[in-house]
Parts: sequence; structure tokens; C-alpha cells
Amino acid sequence: MSTRRTYLDHAATSWPKPEQVVQACVDYQTQLGVAAGRGAYRSSERADQIVGDARSAIAALLGEKNPTTISFTSNGTMALHLAIHGFLHELDLRNTHVVTTSTEHNSVLRPLVSLEKQRGLRWTAVPCDSGGNVDIHTLRDAVEPSTRLIIVNHASNVTGAVQDLVAISEISRQACASLLVDAAQSLGLIDIDVHNPHIDMLAAPGHKGLGGMLGTGILYVRSELSPKLHSPWIGGTGHHSDRLVDDFPWSESAESGNLNIPAIASLGEGVRWLRGNHDAEKLRLWTDRLIDAVEREKRLRWIGSKESRGARQPLQRVPVVSCTHADLSCHEMAMLLDTTLGIEARSGFHCAAMIHRYLGTEHGGTLRISLGHTSTDADVDAAIEGIKLLGSC
Amino acid sequence: MSTRRTYLDHAATSWPKPEQVVQACVDYQTQLGVAAGRGAYRSSERADQIVGDARSAIAALLGEKNPTTISFTSNGTMALHLAIHGFLHELDLRNTHVVTTSTEHNSVLRPLVSLEKQRGLRWTAVPCDSGGNVDIHTLRDAVEPSTRLIIVNHASNVTGAVQDLVAISEISRQACASLLVDAAQSLGLIDIDVHNPHIDMLAAPGHKGLGGMLGTGILYVRSELSPKLHSPWIGGTGHHSDRLVDDFPWSESAESGNLNIPAIASLGEGVRWLRGNHDAEKLRLWTDRLIDAVEREKRLRWIGSKESRGARQPLQRVPVVSCTHADLSCHEMAMLLDTTLGIEARSGFHCAAMIHRYLGTEHGGTLRISLGHTSTDADVDAAIEGIKLLGSC
Repeated sequence: MSTRRTYLDHAATSWPKPEQVVQACVDYQTQLGVAAGRGAYRSSERADQIVGDARSAIAALLGEKNPTTISFTSNGTMALHLAIHGFLHELDLRNTHVVTTSTEHNSVLRPLVSLEKQRGLRWTAVPCDSGGNVDIHTLRDAVEPSTRLIIVNHASNVTGAVQDLVAISEISRQACASLLVDAAQSLGLIDIDVHNPHIDMLAAPGHKGLGGMLGTGILYVRSELSPKLHSPWIGGTGHHSDRLVDDFPWSESAESGNLNIPAIASLGEGVRWLRGNHDAEKLRLWTDRLIDAVEREKRLRWIGSKESRGARQPLQRVPVVSCTHADLSCHEMAMLLDTTLGIEARSGFHCAAMIHRYLGTEHGGTLRISLGHTSTDADVDAAIEGIKLLGSC
Repeated sequence: MSTRRTYLDHAATSWPKPEQVVQACVDYQTQLGVAAGRGAYRSSERADQIVGDARSAIAALLGEKNPTTISFTSNGTMALHLAIHGFLHELDLRNTHVVTTSTEHNSVLRPLVSLEKQRGLRWTAVPCDSGGNVDIHTLRDAVEPSTRLIIVNHASNVTGAVQDLVAISEISRQACASLLVDAAQSLGLIDIDVHNPHIDMLAAPGHKGLGGMLGTGILYVRSELSPKLHSPWIGGTGHHSDRLVDDFPWSESAESGNLNIPAIASLGEGVRWLRGNHDAEKLRLWTDRLIDAVEREKRLRWIGSKESRGARQPLQRVPVVSCTHADLSCHEMAMLLDTTLGIEARSGFHCAAMIHRYLGTEHGGTLRISLGHTSTDADVDAAIEGIKLLGSC
């Protein structure tokens, strides 16, 4: 049994965190510790400032000047829940259509299934190719006159394929539909400017590419759109405490209850750390090395493709590499990597229920290796050693 | 301007945390770091174990053997949201009545207002006396044949008054209604056994009396009840990843998306710390000292009462003391305490919109001083110094 650890599961949560990310959480908890927005003393104002700074840093990362467009949630799933339910709440869902893709995470697909069952929502999941790339022409054809929302997984957490946001944004504008981007696997790894191309909402966890701690998620909502949204949760806001109504501004109602300030402090630090430490070229080269290593092994099949029909943007990829084995199950591969080499990679369906029928992996999913900002050359070397081991089995 | 800090806002969040609480978070983040329930490697199993241990510790604290009755949320508001929406989702709300009290936090009152507007829910908030005590006879009289749920704030976050759960549980059983207890201010400070008296659901933050970090909340749901509940959020669960349906067991669907494991690790440690460090008698004596100090000042009015009509349990109190001033606003009092003595106390309505009309504080709320497990004699002495200062203004 290996006692060494090589962490290759950044697509689940990034680790290790930069030192200052953990330190920001500790500093908050040991030195300040108070709840935000709820006191009349100076320490609580400093807590508000820390939250505001993190909000501003994330807005700036997205090319947005107004920090109140950013709401904090407890993870990416809750950010998507807030966006989907917030947007669809007031609409007559029997006359509303949503376009999404078969590459989506279950945190998009399951709410849509649920709203279909409960309120008659109509929705279409556009297929993808065997590499997880969505055909832009097919997506355009799926749009109907009643399409009000397009939800797209920017980068697949199964194959790493990145969709063409420029083309999809153009389709959404032409259709007068709003665009919600699930940037769970891309934010912090791929530059995103919500004004170019135009994006109405963007959801992401704070603990993956942004480098913050677990317990954080963010939702961006364009200022012009947020007055039309209705928060699914409501409670203590720390403001207007004497009012029982539920018509608070989005920026207040989207965050109900005590904020997780130690983790938000860590997220702000993660985003600031990113500025000087994000090396896209390094991650691209590492990913290529992993794909090449998989492709050299005859008993492994790389789950991906290097072409994308209909896209006008150069094909991009996040550092996620999936494969299957001629004989071993994905779970067996993951166990073998862990026990023999101490390599931590993930196996299964990766919380994406629809994509596997298009990848030919519907009977067991994939083994997934994923890298992040704090990965090292040694991690990549170990991953390649692991890939060779799997190829020899 | 004082540079000393005396933290007297434990009812918002407890601080300082026991050293091992912060250390558990740091250890998780630096040594393990992985996501729970989502991997096929040994580190992710250790993460599952940490979450399981915290769940078991909380269940044991509540006198419950089955740890799957405990769900983790991001704060107390989300735990109440999960309980209220989870319970009411499948019911015909026009034929459903809820009984609650005027002492509730807005995280109970606002969801009820919202469900009244949207789905026609009928609900009654039972009045309280000028100290925040609910008359048990009035509560019993508010129950109707269609009452399906009774929601009660165990301890008021404004006055510290504790309601008689034995009597209220008996009323709920006689009415065949379920009982949801908001234990935000009591869990960890007052012993609660969910089997004696019978409690169906109990919601609480993890970062107040339980001593965990911000970003944690818990919901207990009795095993027999949970199959009837429907989680308001759904997404990635880490299990059944290839299934699109939304009919997962409550223990999975109530927790959607990545769990905040570093904070859950801290919460587990907080609950274990409590076992040897909870000193109810010390907190009671300190609270009495504060009340006596307020009552000695002619220009201050203590917001509370030492009697409770209809209750059969001896009157209890959590360490929360509110007051008003003959001339100064509550905000002015809090500012004065902070700037002259470095005392951090909270002013305003404390996210409880209804109670103030019964306390006579509807025009500005109260100044609230609150203590916790890690308060010290020096904190209490400083609080009394502050009370004297206010009395002299």
C-alpha cells in the first residue's frame, strides 16, 4: 500500500490550497470571528469589508465593475439552484422552454427534471459528440420562440471539452433568451468576461479553479436581470429586520442567514493569489502530456476529441482527462492507482447523468485525472507513471 | 477609542472558538483537503469518516442513535428553509395550517409569509408576553383541525426566554401535528433529547452554542418523518450519479453539492469539546448578574420577565440580555460601548420582526448582550462596567 499521495482530483475540489488561502480563514477565525452585517461595532464592519473585498475581487475577475452582482453561496450546486429557481420562479413554466446540453452536471439536469414534473417546464438537452463537444448548429436549432433560458456547462467535468461561449451567447441574444453559464470547471482556469461575450448569469464553486476553501460558491447576475429574479430562500438578512415582506433586493435576498465569512475570506485570497499564479500554458502542456500518455496505451481509451463541429473559437480544454480500460472497471483503475502509487483520481459518472450515452461510457463511467493551479511537474510525472501501469494491466 | 475587545455577541456567532475547533479545520485543509463521498481513493473515505463522526456526535447530543437523521446545511436559516419547505412541499397549503409564535426569527416568519402569498398557506403566530414568553394555553387554542405543523423558537434571540417544549410537544402530539424546533439559541446551551419530549424536526446553526465555525448548520428529522419530506434543492449528491430522477432518500437529497468538510470537521470537534466544557450553572449566574446590573440602572429597561404563564417547566433562560435606554437609541448605546470600552454588543431588531410589538420595542429594537461557552468572568465584569456607563448617560 502506497503511503505517498499524488492528488489528481482538482475537478472535485482543488488541493493543496495556496498557503495564504488557509491563513486567511485562520486569521479571520482567530482574530475577528464575528458575523457580518449584523452588528453596530467596528469588528462587524471589518467583517463586512472582508466580504466586500472578496465580492469586488470576483467581480473584477469577471470584468464586472459592480460587486453587488456577485452573491455568495455554499457551493456550486447552490449557486446553480439559486440561478435556475430564481430565474424560473415567476414564469409560467408550461409556456417556457429551456435549452441546455447533455454535458451538464446533475445540479443543472436534476432541477430541470424536477421543474418539469412539478410545474410542466419544457426543456431540451442538446447532444454532444463522443468528446463532449456540443454542435453549435444543433444548439441553435433547439431554440424555440418560448425559449427563455439557455444553460451551458462551459467546460465538461468528464472530458474537459470547453464549449464556444461566443457562439452560444450570440444565439441567446438573437433568441432574446438569458444565458446561464455553469463555470464550475472553468472559472479561474479560463478567462471569462461577462460583458464579452454577453453572459447574464454565471455560477461556480469557490473551491475549485478559484482556489478558495470548501463551503464557497458564487453566482453572478447581470444588474439589469436581477430585479426580475426571486430568491428561493429567505430568512434573516441582517437588514430590514423589522420587515416581514419578502421583496428585498436580489443582492440581499440571495444570501440568507449568516455568511461563511472565514471561507469567503479564503476565497478572496484565492482570487487575489490567482492574479500572479495562473499559468494557462503550463496547464495546457500538462494536459496534452496526459492525453498523449493515455493515447499511447492500447488498453486505454481516451474519452475526448480534438475537433468540435460548428465552433468558431479555437478549441479549448480544461485540465481534465478521462479514460476507460479494455478490461478493468473505472473503480478498479482508481483503486489500483491509489493502493499501488498513492494516486488519487476519481472514477464513475462524475455527477453528469446524460453525457455518458454520447461518450459510450454509460455502463461504468470513466477514470478521471484532473489538475489545478497547485499541481506540480512531479504530479504529472506520477500521473503518467499511473497511466503506464494501467496500460500494462 | 478603545482598542480592547470584549465580545458579547455570542447569539450572532460564538467567539472565540475553542482552539481545537479551528485546528480541526486547518488540519483538514492542510492534510486531507478532498471532497467527501465522491472518490474511490482512501483519502476520500477518510473525509467521509470525518463527516460521519460529526453526524454521530450531533445525533448523540440530541439523544438520537441514527446519525442519518442529521443533515448538514450552511447555516441555521438554510436548516429552517430545508425543514419548512421540505415538510410543506407536497401538501395542499390552502387546507394546511401552521402554528408558530411571535418570538420566531425571520428565517421562520418570512418563509411562512412567502408560502402564504404564493400557495395560500394559513398560519397563526401566537403572541408572547412582554418578556418573550409564549402562553401555553394560547398556543393550544391556536391549533385547528388542519394544523399540520407547529414551529417554535426554543429560546428567543431577543430576550433569552425559553419556551416549554414539554408542553408544546404534548400539544403537537394531541393534534397529530409535527413539531419543528428552532434551537438556534439553545442547542449546546440547554440539554435537548429529541425523544423526550418528542420532537420531529430540529434546526440549528453549527456556529453558535455548538461551537463550530461559521458555514455550518444542522437539521434533525425523525426517521419516520423523513420519507414524507421533499428536499427543496437537488443536484450532485456523489451517489447515483447516472440517475436523473429526484426521488433520492432524504439523507442524500437534503445535502446537495459539495459539503463544507473543513467546517464540518470543526463542528464535530466543537460538539466533542462541549461534553467536558459546558457549564450551565456558570452561564445562569452570569446572566443573572447582567440582568441585576441592568435592573439597578434607572435609565435602562430590562426587556424580559421572570414569570411565564401556563408553562409547567421551571423557567429557563439562555445567556441573552436585552435592554433599552430612556434617551439613547440602541444603536447609540452599541456605538458608545464599542468606542469607549471596546464592548461588542448588538443593537436593533435582531432579525425577529414580530416580537418587538409585544416587548414595546417596535420603534428601535434593543441593545443585546449575549454570552457563550468561551465567555470569561472578565467579559462579564466588562459588560457590567458597560451597563453602568449606559445608566449614567
